[in-house]
Amino acid sequence: MTADADRRFMRHALGLARRGLGRVWPNPAVGCVIVRDGRVVGRGWTQAGGRPHAETVALAQAGDTARGAVAYVTLEPCAHHGKTPPCAEALIAAGIARVVSALEDPDARVAGRGHAMLRAAGITVETGIMAAEAAALQQGFLTRIGQGRPMVTLKLATSFDGRIATASGDSQWITGEGARRRVHAMRAAHDAVLVGAGTARADDPSLTVRGLGVAHQPIRIVAARWLDLSLVGTLARTAAEVPVWLLHGPAAAEERQEAWTALGARLIEVAETEGGLDPAAMLAALGSAGLTRVFCEGGGRLAAALIRARLVDELAVFSAGIGIGGDGRAALGAFGLSHLAEAPRFALTGVEQIGPDVLTLWSRG
Amino acid sequence: MTADADRRFMRHALGLARRGLGRVWPNPAVGCVIVRDGRVVGRGWTQAGGRPHAETVALAQAGDTARGAVAYVTLEPCAHHGKTPPCAEALIAAGIARVVSALEDPDARVAGRGHAMLRAAGITVETGIMAAEAAALQQGFLTRIGQGRPMVTLKLATSFDGRIATASGDSQWITGEGARRRVHAMRAAHDAVLVGAGTARADDPSLTVRGLGVAHQPIRIVAARWLDLSLVGTLARTAAEVPVWLLHGPAAAEERQEAWTALGARLIEVAETEGGLDPAAMLAALGSAGLTRVFCEGGGRLAAALIRARLVDELAVFSAGIGIGGDGRAALGAFGLSHLAEAPRFALTGVEQIGPDVLTLWSRG
Repeated sequence: MTADADRRFMRHALGLARRGLGRVWPNPAVGCVIVRDGRVVGRGWTQAGGRPHAETVALAQAGDTARGAVAYVTLEPCAHHGKTPPCAEALIAAGIARVVSALEDPDARVAGRGHAMLRAAGITVETGIMAAEAAALQQGFLTRIGQGRPMVTLKLATSFDGRIATASGDSQWITGEGARRRVHAMRAAHDAVLVGAGTARADDPSLTVRGLGVAHQPIRIVAARWLDLSLVGTLARTAAEVPVWLLHGPAAAEERQEAWTALGARLIEVAETEGGLDPAAMLAALGSAGLTRVFCEGGGRLAAALIRARLVDELAVFSAGIGIGGDGRAALGAFGLSHLAEAPRFALTGVEQIGPDVLTLWSRG
Repeated sequence: MTADADRRFMRHALGLARRGLGRVWPNPAVGCVIVRDGRVVGRGWTQAGGRPHAETVALAQAGDTARGAVAYVTLEPCAHHGKTPPCAEALIAAGIARVVSALEDPDARVAGRGHAMLRAAGITVETGIMAAEAAALQQGFLTRIGQGRPMVTLKLATSFDGRIATASGDSQWITGEGARRRVHAMRAAHDAVLVGAGTARADDPSLTVRGLGVAHQPIRIVAARWLDLSLVGTLARTAAEVPVWLLHGPAAAEERQEAWTALGARLIEVAETEGGLDPAAMLAALGSAGLTRVFCEGGGRLAAALIRARLVDELAVFSAGIGIGGDGRAALGAFGLSHLAEAPRFALTGVEQIGPDVLTLWSRG
C-alpha cells in the first residue's frame, strides 16, 4: 500500500470519526475503515453513547473479508476490558494483517498497550499517519485526558464593530439564517452548550439543536452562581426532556437547588473566585462529568472569564454587515488589560462566507 | 469582434484605469486600449494630476496603426475643451473605426455628447460594456458628480471583539505587517486620508504612504472643530511637504488658523451640527475642493458620525486574532440606536486572509 493510499483511507476514517462528535462522550469519536486488496470492505465509527466502538462496527461489516486486510483507525485501538472487550483483541481475532493508526491513545488504560498487543500478535502496525488532523478532531477527548477539562469552543455573533445587541438589548437578528443554521450544526457537534445566567435570563433560550433533523441533543448548561433563573422559563419547562445542568456556587439558595432538582436538572457545585464562578473549576467539574466538547455561546461576562483564564480553545466569530455603535452591548466583558502584549491571541484557522455574513475560525495561539 | 473579446479588452482597460485611482482628482481615472486586428497597439490611463487623458496616451502609443482600429474606454470620451482638447475629437482625427465604452460620463459638460460626436463622425459606438465594473471603479468620480461629495471608504482595524486599543490606549499593534502594508496601498488609491482630531492628537500620525515606492501622496485631512492640534507634531512639521487640509468650525481660534496657514496647511471652514462638525457639510466641502475618494481611518467618533449620516460607501474591516475585552476602546462611537432595524447595513463584497488577519470588505446596502 502506498503512503498516498494510506493517507486517503485515513482521511476517510477521519470523516467517519467526525460523525460521532458531540454524541460519544466520555469516549473519543473514532473512525475505522477496513481495506482488502485496495477495496473498502468495512466502515465504522463510534456510535452514539460511545459504543459499539468504530472497530467493532467496521469488523462486523467486513465479516470474513477482514482476514488479511488492513484496518485504518483514527486512534489506537483500546486494550482494556471496559464495557466492551478490547478492540485490539477483536482486530487480532478477525485476522487483520496490518493496522494503520493516526494517534496513540493517551488514556492511561491504553497508552501504547493497544499497539503493543497488535504487534505481539504479529500484526504490522504503523502509527502517526495524519496525526495532526486526528489530534484536531480528537481535541476534546485529548484535552479531557490531558488537562481534565473539556475543550471549549466560544461562539460570538457580532456586528462589524463587535456588538451583540443595541443598548436596549435588541439582538434579533444580527446575523442571517445561514449563520444561525451553522450555529445549530456546531451545537450538534459538541457534547454540551454553555451560557451564563444573564444570557439565560435575557434570552430565555432553548439551546437545542433545531432544523437539522438531529435527534441527539447536547446537554444544556447554565453557569448560574446564585441559581437565579426562571423556574417557568424554557429551560425549566423542558428540563425533563433535554438534560439541563446548572453550575452554581456554594451559596446558592437551598430551595432553588431543590426546585431545579425537582424539575430534572443536574446541579453541580463549583468553587467561586472574585466576581463569579471559577472558570477553571467549572470546566474541571464538566470534565469529571465526562464532557469532552463544550460550546459556549456567551454572554459577554462568561466569555471574557473563559478567555482571560486561557480556557477557550476554539473561537467561531460570525460577523454581520451591520453597525451598532459604541453604546451597543459588547461581545465580551472587561479584561482589565493595560498593554496589548498581555492580550490573549488566537491563530486564524479558517474564513468562510455564509450568506451575508462572514465566519472566521481561530485557535488558541 | 466577439462580445467575449470586447469584455476582455475592456477588462484590460479597467486594469489600466485603476492605476490612476488616488492621483487624478478632480478628473476620473480612465483607461484606454487601442486594438487593431485583435492586437493591442496602444494603452493609456489618466496620468497623475488628471492629464494627459487615457485616450491621448493610448493614441500616441498607437500612432498610425490607430487608423481603422477599435478603442476601448472605461468612460465616455470627453467632448468639451478643457485644459486639453476633447478626446472625442482626437479619436476621430486618429481614424478610429469603432469605440467601445463602459459608461456614459455624467459630467454635464459631457453627458452623451462625446458618444454623439463620435457617431456623427461615422464611428461605430457601443456603450455599457462592463458598466457595473466601470461604475465601481469610478465610484468616487460618480459620487462627486452625482452627490457633490467624494466617496468615503472607512477602515477599521480591530480585535475580534471590535476594539481598537486597550483602555489605556495601547494600540500597537493589533493587526500584522501585511494588514498595515495593505492599509498603505489603500491610502495610495485614495485622493485623501481623513482622521478626527482625537486620533491626530493621540497617535501623532504621519498619514503618508510608506514602504510601497509610491511617490504620490494623498492629501492629509484632519477634522478638527477647534483646530486643537499640536503645532509641533508630525503633521505640522511636514505640512509644507505633503499637503495638510484642516476642516474646522466657525469658532476655531483666529491665531490657530493663522499658525496652521503659516505652516502651509489649507483651512476649510465647515458648518457645525450638535456635537461636532456636520459630516455632510464636511464632505460637501471636500467635494467642492475636487476630491473624489476619501479614506477615513477613524477615530471612533468621526467614523460613527459618518456611518450614522449614511456617508460611508465602502468599509474595510481588518480583524485580528486578539481579544481586548469590553473595557477596551470601541471602534465606533455611540449611535444611539434602540432597535436593530434602524442600524446601518452593509453588504459583503469580499473576504481575504492577510497573514494572521482577516480583511472583510463591505459596501453600503
